[in-house]
Amino acid sequence: MSLAPIECDALVVGAGPVGLFQVFQLGLLEISCHVVDARPSAGGQCSQLYGDKPIYDIPGTPVTTGTGLVESLLRQVEPFAPHFHFGQQVSTLERQDDGRLLLGTSRGQSFLARTVYIAAGVGAFLPRHIALPGLPDFEGTRLFYHPESLERFAGQTVVVQGGDDEALAAALALVDRAAQVTLVHRRDVFQADETLQAQVRAAIRAGQIKLVIGQPSAFDAHRMQLETPEGASLHLELDAWLAYPGISPRLGPIADWGLQLARKQVPVDTERFQTCEPGVFAVGDVNTYPGKKKLIVCGFHEATLAAWAGAAIVFPDKAIPLQYTTTSTRLHELLGVDHPVR
Amino acid sequence: MSLAPIECDALVVGAGPVGLFQVFQLGLLEISCHVVDARPSAGGQCSQLYGDKPIYDIPGTPVTTGTGLVESLLRQVEPFAPHFHFGQQVSTLERQDDGRLLLGTSRGQSFLARTVYIAAGVGAFLPRHIALPGLPDFEGTRLFYHPESLERFAGQTVVVQGGDDEALAAALALVDRAAQVTLVHRRDVFQADETLQAQVRAAIRAGQIKLVIGQPSAFDAHRMQLETPEGASLHLELDAWLAYPGISPRLGPIADWGLQLARKQVPVDTERFQTCEPGVFAVGDVNTYPGKKKLIVCGFHEATLAAWAGAAIVFPDKAIPLQYTTTSTRLHELLGVDHPVR
Ligand SMILES: Cc1cc2nc3c(=O)[nH]c(=O)nc-3n(C[C@H](O)[C@H](O)[C@H](O)COP(=O)(O)OP(=O)(O)OC[C@H]3O[C@@H](n4cnc5c(N)ncnc54)[C@H](O)[C@@H]3O)c2cc1C
Ligand SMILES: Cc1cc2nc3c(=O)[nH]c(=O)nc-3n(C[C@H](O)[C@H](O)[C@H](O)COP(=O)(O)OP(=O)(O)OC[C@H]3O[C@@H](n4cnc5c(N)ncnc54)[C@H](O)[C@@H]3O)c2cc1C
Repeated sequence: MSLAPIECDALVVGAGPVGLFQVFQLGLLEISCHVVDARPSAGGQCSQLYGDKPIYDIPGTPVTTGTGLVESLLRQVEPFAPHFHFGQQVSTLERQDDGRLLLGTSRGQSFLARTVYIAAGVGAFLPRHIALPGLPDFEGTRLFYHPESLERFAGQTVVVQGGDDEALAAALALVDRAAQVTLVHRRDVFQADETLQAQVRAAIRAGQIKLVIGQPSAFDAHRMQLETPEGASLHLELDAWLAYPGISPRLGPIADWGLQLARKQVPVDTERFQTCEPGVFAVGDVNTYPGKKKLIVCGFHEATLAAWAGAAIVFPDKAIPLQYTTTSTRLHELLGVDHPVR
Repeated sequence: MSLAPIECDALVVGAGPVGLFQVFQLGLLEISCHVVDARPSAGGQCSQLYGDKPIYDIPGTPVTTGTGLVESLLRQVEPFAPHFHFGQQVSTLERQDDGRLLLGTSRGQSFLARTVYIAAGVGAFLPRHIALPGLPDFEGTRLFYHPESLERFAGQTVVVQGGDDEALAAALALVDRAAQVTLVHRRDVFQADETLQAQVRAAIRAGQIKLVIGQPSAFDAHRMQLETPEGASLHLELDAWLAYPGISPRLGPIADWGLQLARKQVPVDTERFQTCEPGVFAVGDVNTYPGKKKLIVCGFHEATLAAWAGAAIVFPDKAIPLQYTTTSTRLHELLGVDHPVR
């Protein structure tokens, strides 16, 4: 599947805190954006890793939470109505003959952009996949990574694989729904909430959950073969394999864009935060330069200067003066606050 | 007058938004600060020039005011209890033999600091002074720059000099109090609020205010000599000369600290935001480097990296890891939030 390319002045890769502020600074410079994020919603690490935890070092915000910060940033970009494309990874980036940049996503969407802002953080938080020959063929029919709902497994013989909160919660939730629940984990220790562990141990003792210690080594649609820590082989018959191998950030395809990565980071200058590719900027956790700190406050500055450098490309003939949001009537128009009440 | 020097790890020159966030970032790195500002309170341009105006480009704060931002920043630095020294200008900076920096203020206070952070913005907002021989001798007895109260001029023969809001408002306010009010301005055009201008013009027509167009050229305690635009000389008898030459920012003494100023700005690198003097950093509007934008968001980043570079000087033997305010128990202790409620 492949859709007609969307032509745009600016494409932002990543809707974490820095990608969102990138949209805001571009908006003030009258550049509207498309934004692609692999996740189903905005916020990056703030939402994914510490949504409900307090954060204290956002300047001018003595305390908020990961989620609170993201909500504020989303309110701040609202006047610029960015086009969000969620749930797809940007996988390719190529320079066209006319100088524009062609980007393609994992969902077959493509973009022809005059400037690109990589705000990909430490990468896309995607489920890890299990490496076994032929396994991808069963994805969605027999094998389910981090399934969103457990409804469809009612009445089935189910193997839940994993040892964290998510895996244990799924096993417990299936006790009253599935025909049979087997919990498979590579060792007899779970990395999960104590209460949850206690509940699962009780269900195992009560015979509601069968516990098998081992690693899957082969699969043929109905039978999982496992190796135990002692080197023995086991077999499990099943209708559905629910796999919880965890979520891990992966820079993934960005490594192949010719951006001369240094230790998984994209080198940039500190005047424009531009990569070695003209018109391709990198901001936030994904970039590196002398003195770099992976802090949100630094990403905000980087996005600001990248926006100005991008504007010089999008409007090559316009000398753009620095305007203040407090005093500029043009910025007030753009922000939709034409008549600020004093 | 000269007081014993205060020894400290960090001296911040300027309590504008960037100086305040400098204090915060130093605090997270366990460096406590003294802060000097020429003004009687914190906030710099935000308080002085747009306290009640909305500002929209502080990241994560869709809207606040100059004053609102300053209040938030003051709350944010509270856990670090910085020592503020208001109402005095830092006038000298010299390197000592032991490597420390000796700074002196206009009030005779001195500091021996291991690191210095110049966050002086566009300079101290101080009243302009009129350049006439002998004039300073009359300051406070006959000549009053931007007087805070008009009480003392009751019953006197008063000359109000200036053409802005402040001067016009003073002239009007004195009509019913002073024996005689003369408004002196260099031309017959005022730069002031329309209503205020109309009121003053009416008072002039009614003979309550006498208008004289000209520039003071000499003064002898009771007699002001003026030159008119046509080149004639005039004299005015007076008890008090109220001068409103405006408030203007002046970088002033910082220009003499050997920091190789470029167009009134202090050049810094972008790794440490350090000046040509080791241990002397410059952040916010006062500095310059390729790409520099005079925006608050940029100053916040600069202060962050300067704090890390300063910490390397204050703690030369300590490798300091990056810690997150969301997760570090040490930072929670410093912030006084040991037991965050989840
Ligand atoms: C537990 C924890 C606590 C923290 N606490 C603090 C703190 O107190 N203060 C602080 O300043 N920082 C803190 N940080 C760091 C902070 O979260 C990061 O600096 C910040 O999230 C970086 O923002 P970003 O927008 O650059 O990247 P991210 O937040 O990582 O967002 C990147 C986004 O890009 C998307 N993406 C990546 N690759 C692609 C692709 N190819 N296609 C499409 N989308 C893609 C990802 O899905 C993601 O949504 C903390 C981090 C963690 C893990
Ligand atoms: C009308 C207006 C609107 C603005 N709107 C915006 C906006 O919307 N967004 C934005 O990002 N920026 C805006 N700005 C710019 C913003 O205010 C500045 O970037 C910011 O104030 C710089 O902060 P600072 O701390 O570096 O310096 P300043 O705010 O200038 O503070 C410097 C402080 O240092 C003190 N000082 C100076 N010299 C000495 C000395 N020798 N000894 C002791 N104290 C000293 C001064 O008294 C002052 O308090 C605006 C500016 C103006 C004038």
